[in-house]
Amino acid sequence: MERISSSRCFGGEQMVWKHQSRALSCDMRVAVFTPPREKHGAGPYPTLYWLSGLTCTEDNFTVKAGAQRVAAELGMMIVAPDTSPRGDDVPDLEPKTYDFGKGAGFYLDATQAPWARQYRMYSYIVDELPKLVAENFPADAARTGIFGHSMGGHGALTIHLKNPDKFRSCSAFAPIVAPSLVPWGRKALSNYLGPDEKDWAPYDATRLVADRGASKAHILIDQGTGDQFLAEQLLPEIFAAAAQKAGQKLTLNMRDGYDHSYFFMASFIDDHLRWHQKALA
Amino acid sequence: MERISSSRCFGGEQMVWKHQSRALSCDMRVAVFTPPREKHGAGPYPTLYWLSGLTCTEDNFTVKAGAQRVAAELGMMIVAPDTSPRGDDVPDLEPKTYDFGKGAGFYLDATQAPWARQYRMYSYIVDELPKLVAENFPADAARTGIFGHSMGGHGALTIHLKNPDKFRSCSAFAPIVAPSLVPWGRKALSNYLGPDEKDWAPYDATRLVADRGASKAHILIDQGTGDQFLAEQLLPEIFAAAAQKAGQKLTLNMRDGYDHSYFFMASFIDDHLRWHQKALA
Repeated sequence: MERISSSRCFGGEQMVWKHQSRALSCDMRVAVFTPPREKHGAGPYPTLYWLSGLTCTEDNFTVKAGAQRVAAELGMMIVAPDTSPRGDDVPDLEPKTYDFGKGAGFYLDATQAPWARQYRMYSYIVDELPKLVAENFPADAARTGIFGHSMGGHGALTIHLKNPDKFRSCSAFAPIVAPSLVPWGRKALSNYLGPDEKDWAPYDATRLVADRGASKAHILIDQGTGDQFLAEQLLPEIFAAAAQKAGQKLTLNMRDGYDHSYFFMASFIDDHLRWHQKALA
Repeated sequence: MERISSSRCFGGEQMVWKHQSRALSCDMRVAVFTPPREKHGAGPYPTLYWLSGLTCTEDNFTVKAGAQRVAAELGMMIVAPDTSPRGDDVPDLEPKTYDFGKGAGFYLDATQAPWARQYRMYSYIVDELPKLVAENFPADAARTGIFGHSMGGHGALTIHLKNPDKFRSCSAFAPIVAPSLVPWGRKALSNYLGPDEKDWAPYDATRLVADRGASKAHILIDQGTGDQFLAEQLLPEIFAAAAQKAGQKLTLNMRDGYDHSYFFMASFIDDHLRWHQKALA
């Protein structure tokens, strides 16, 4: 791994690293925050993976969410990867659309040409990245959680539900919870996975919790009521209903007037970090 | 004024507005944060003007500094303007450089062609913007402070020192304190104000405090020791020496290992807001 940048931040260190990804067959960037050594020792630290939404890179969460303050206080590491494979060789739609292809990997392993070779964000997040992180940073594999926003909330929920022992805690801001039912999800899943909707189930949080049953975690979701995507793309009540039926512990906070932006996430990021810390203690 | 955007943030409201500026003869954007009405009433609120550094717009501080959390707690308003006149009609160097022209107004009133007509950020910040803010927002003119970063730290210091009753409190992150002596400042001042260095004194914080004496305020400066611009462009010790000689109250915190980025500012923004609140109480 090659270090691209490093800045002191709340006594810890906010870094960006570059590495060659085998899963994705391209160079990838990943942002890593480590908490203050003076205060929390040399680790290993409880570690959260943050998955970003459509159009984002490793940068958005890192500069906008304000998570480092409480991560520094609590002694947590945060790993924020990019949202898709990158590079001129990576296929994309022509013309480019914001909700598919680069910047929109949907945290799945594609099966359809031309996407199947490089759009393998599920394997990247679940297998390759944790290994890389374990080799290079003082992360505590036994205390690892996952969270994300919008498309990344979908990623966090589905990855947690399929890997509850690896990513033990889970939370999301304004997640896509039922991609099989909404335009963003249907476009992504049909292109990446083909037209048979049976094949979409492993990447649909609502179907996963119905098919596989509850995880041991208590999932936290925050959703703004002023979110412009709430009614058409997000539909958290569908997941809440499936969770209730499956016995999945879930707290869904509807936040009055908040929109889909990082101003919303910054307002509640502290709660999420403390929620994970408690769950991973 | 026309509202461009509004997002709920920590219970308050983060907005961006557009307006026609008389001082600058162009349309300008300005970001305004108002604190939670439920908690702090309808105002008027103590108000801080934030001046950004080179290359920035009204957006950088707003999305990166994390100031809204404590502003919401303390009940303060924050006004973050752009850093220069904007638009295709506004003159600039050909080819464009990052440290002069658009994005680099240096918070002065230019006297030299072709800059003198529109590069009038000093008048904009000191006269036009506070009037506009008073007409459109619940700002408390009697409790107004100013702060900024780098070029904006220079702006905050010089504007405070010349208008200590209007901008009663003042702080800065990594400010340019002696522009007459450093490359960024010499380039800007010679182009905007002409070659006679006597004419630069009103826009040089170190010369201002020496020439005019101390303000009543206790100025706060935070400076990272890992700042890549510290030795060539910033030189806070020069201002500290002039302040001491003039009896200007100053706290200069040298912050071990911090760089010039918003990661540094986010780490100490709470201290600055609390400092202003106390000074304006």
